[in-house]
Amino acid sequence: MTPPDGPGCPLPDDGAGNVLLGHGSGGRLMHRLLGDLIRPALGGDTPATDAAVLPDAGGRLAFTTDSFVIRPLVFPGGDIGSLAVHGTVNDLAMSGASPAYLSVSLILEEGLALETLRQLLVSLRTAADACGVCVVTGDTKVVERGKGDGLFINTSGIGRVPDDVDLGPWAIRPGDAVLVSGDLGRHGVAVLTAREALELETTVDSDSASVAGAVTALLEAGIEVHCLRDLTRGGLSSALNELASDCGRRIEVNEADIPVREDVAATCELLGLDPLYVACEGRFVAFVPEAHVERAVGVLQSLEVSAGARRIGRVTDEPGRGVDLVSRIGARRVLDMLAADQLPRIC
Amino acid sequence: MTPPDGPGCPLPDDGAGNVLLGHGSGGRLMHRLLGDLIRPALGGDTPATDAAVLPDAGGRLAFTTDSFVIRPLVFPGGDIGSLAVHGTVNDLAMSGASPAYLSVSLILEEGLALETLRQLLVSLRTAADACGVCVVTGDTKVVERGKGDGLFINTSGIGRVPDDVDLGPWAIRPGDAVLVSGDLGRHGVAVLTAREALELETTVDSDSASVAGAVTALLEAGIEVHCLRDLTRGGLSSALNELASDCGRRIEVNEADIPVREDVAATCELLGLDPLYVACEGRFVAFVPEAHVERAVGVLQSLEVSAGARRIGRVTDEPGRGVDLVSRIGARRVLDMLAADQLPRIC
Repeated sequence: MTPPDGPGCPLPDDGAGNVLLGHGSGGRLMHRLLGDLIRPALGGDTPATDAAVLPDAGGRLAFTTDSFVIRPLVFPGGDIGSLAVHGTVNDLAMSGASPAYLSVSLILEEGLALETLRQLLVSLRTAADACGVCVVTGDTKVVERGKGDGLFINTSGIGRVPDDVDLGPWAIRPGDAVLVSGDLGRHGVAVLTAREALELETTVDSDSASVAGAVTALLEAGIEVHCLRDLTRGGLSSALNELASDCGRRIEVNEADIPVREDVAATCELLGLDPLYVACEGRFVAFVPEAHVERAVGVLQSLEVSAGARRIGRVTDEPGRGVDLVSRIGARRVLDMLAADQLPRIC
Repeated sequence: MTPPDGPGCPLPDDGAGNVLLGHGSGGRLMHRLLGDLIRPALGGDTPATDAAVLPDAGGRLAFTTDSFVIRPLVFPGGDIGSLAVHGTVNDLAMSGASPAYLSVSLILEEGLALETLRQLLVSLRTAADACGVCVVTGDTKVVERGKGDGLFINTSGIGRVPDDVDLGPWAIRPGDAVLVSGDLGRHGVAVLTAREALELETTVDSDSASVAGAVTALLEAGIEVHCLRDLTRGGLSSALNELASDCGRRIEVNEADIPVREDVAATCELLGLDPLYVACEGRFVAFVPEAHVERAVGVLQSLEVSAGARRIGRVTDEPGRGVDLVSRIGARRVLDMLAADQLPRIC
């Protein structure tokens, strides 16, 4: 059955407002979906070409990609649209880049409500505007019912890297302080409570946000930043273990200094989760020399997205590579990576 | 159940060599999948950071993205790995860019055979090497059984655009000749016969290939190229209709000049397909001024990937926008877009 089509007709659908398999074909249905829904929602006014042509950036670029398969599509404090912007923007920011351009590639499952798609793309565009990044190119595919899960979004991003910036595990030095930009675990808890439809006394909102402004503020203040890493899948523990492994050092963190909100800690306890392993989508760790700690924390605390920033540990000059946690009573234990994350499909 | 893990252990799996949901978490299982399988298969030797930092390109860049959801994953003449390179490289080439960098983002379905994944990534890397593009960044997600379909791949790409090149529908002029780079329909027919396990007398191989070299050759020969478009979803007819609509002109093509291999035409007839609407993954149309036709065809025919190049039509100065097909007996009819493609999940 071919839905009615033609000038002035509403966007053809399955009769109940949902995506058809034909919306992903190369024909008129796809052009109607792009022209009537996707491009208006994303606010695109660029010509429909195979690639976007970008002006000379006049310097080094950062390039990153992320596919988002989060379940459910909407959660307290965000949705897959805004998350797809924040995740990629933050990956760019971790290299010290200012995010500039995004691509958006959609995999729709047949039967997804077109209105849901529209709302999520508007959310994506709103987040992109707030981050100052332009959506310049995209792609849309449709898979049969039961071969996808509503909506997957890939965003790839390009950012400009300032001339004198070279951040990475290779720049980490013994004696560096480890800062965290805010309290941990809210994204994972928000998603899990939405997924399980848990009735909790308080709603925990995801921390999903762009941290690019906080990174720019650190760099512009002349802080000697050695390395940044956002705390997504696997949370703080996995990020620190990766970095310890890559830089060949031991990192020591103090449990008492690691910020976790009381309601998040309580919910984690209820659910059997350890907040040190729960994903954030608007938090990062920064490695800076001891002499810059006070100023760096001050810069971060002056911004809303990183108002909860604090020092949580340091890079030691002990042999080996790994992460040690000093507990509230002074006991020391290895903080390992989990075999698998506690929460699948968190981003 | 946590599979055995540790130094020297084989990559943990579900006991039968397949992807676990935990392979997509932020924990050790994911690091083992990346370190033992994905990075070695892709030949990556870059540090594991959130974004790749690229040197100053010293000029304009093209940026594009494509998600590949083709079914089946392997087909005569290619697979999703090589296709994911060719598709994105060709999108870059259509803007006149020389492809330089790729990102690779994977969405794995729980239960996918790890060996299948490895082979497809080796194919991807082999194709990237052949095209001279570097895979510089990536991402891996895993979704539950029944929420994906084995493997989806997103590739985004960056290429360098020569200073004096500005290709697009806006540059199409009345009188321009329309060239096609080779015979049509082989990709769609190859995929469909693989999908339906049709027993045909001859095997049609997909035309999946990079056309970037052919585009570079045209530009380096000084051909005044106005517009290029690859013939993917929706085939020749959809591509020409899009361009006619975007440039506000009528395009006339001669059926007798459009190259379709005999075995492809026969299979299309058997399957009820029109080769003018069947996707190619290694073919494009080029719009060039009349005075450059002979040289342009000569340049294309000198290269294997475009050895079958020929002139198939022209841009008229008649009013309106659309595509007219002049049949073998001289009858003229409108060549419209189909409502939906004949073949879903062709790329």
